[in-house]
Amino acid sequence: MTKQASKLVIVTEKLLLKKIAKIIDEAGATGYTVVDAGGRGSRNVRSSGQPSVSDTQSNIKFEVLTPTREMAVKISDEVAAEFFDDYSGIAYLCDVMEVLHAHKF
Amino acid sequence: MTKQASKLVIVTEKLLLKKIAKIIDEAGATGYTVVDAGGRGSRNVRSSGQPSVSDTQSNIKFEVLTPTREMAVKISDEVAAEFFDDYSGIAYLCDVMEVLHAHKF
Amino acid sequence: MTKQASKLVIVTEKLLLKKIAKIIDEAGATGYTVVDAGGRGSRNVRSSGQPSVSDTQSNIKFEVLTPTREMAVKISDEVAAEFFDDYSGIAYLCDVMEVLHAHKF
Repeated sequence: MTKQASKLVIVTEKLLLKKIAKIIDEAGATGYTVVDAGGRGSRNVRSSGQPSVSDTQSNIKFEVLTPTREMAVKISDEVAAEFFDDYSGIAYLCDVMEVLHAHKF
Repeated sequence: MTKQASKLVIVTEKLLLKKIAKIIDEAGATGYTVVDAGGRGSRNVRSSGQPSVSDTQSNIKFEVLTPTREMAVKISDEVAAEFFDDYSGIAYLCDVMEVLHAHKF
Repeated sequence: MTKQASKLVIVTEKLLLKKIAKIIDEAGATGYTVVDAGGRGSRNVRSSGQPSVSDTQSNIKFEVLTPTREMAVKISDEVAAEFFDDYSGIAYLCDVMEVLHAHKF
């Protein structure tokens, strides 16, 4: 079994975990992975010029494999429209994934 | 130093950590990264229609850089054959990685 | 909004977190994600032949989206020159990312 897939990555604030999971779910994606992530976006830049490294509890990173690019863009559009005015976040796409095996996932 | 590599990603249940590490090792891969991951596969869908967001302790995500696509497929085939009848998991591949620097890794 | 980006991934020892964050920052990248990671590089191979699975506290994985490939290579070159003689690490690049949405990130 081999099939092309798009991988959508969304990094955003942790408090949005359940709301974004719901959007992914309702778009018809069969699953996703989420990990705790720290990092820095332009929101966190300190005037001291020092990079402010957040601890790894503040952000989350979703990875969603979707059968079509369209589904990934739809999820991304919806997440950005609902949350990216008020919360920091980034959504990006990689179109060259190939699913080798999947079981109950 | 720049060389093409394939990146194999395996997301599966945490209790398989050591067994999968052994398969990766025996296939000749020089290293891998593993992170704790939560998420949802079709196994976890609740009949309520609510997405069930696992905590980040239940799953693991392996990332393995391999010098050839063949090595990545071999690892994936073996992991799927041994475990994906009984455990949830997904294995996917990205062929467009480029290793810039590696030291003792 | 859609724009091509390169994704630089650096996996290395956790004690380098702040120093690498500084290099990324000074190169002009607008943000990055960092997660705790375990794994195995050739440095950790035990003579017993058993894979030694590190716990997930020992390493870190940076992911940096950069607008150009040049910026990614520059960061990677600098990190490798400063640290990869003394610490284990790997830096690799994926050129096919597409940023869909970004806000304060």
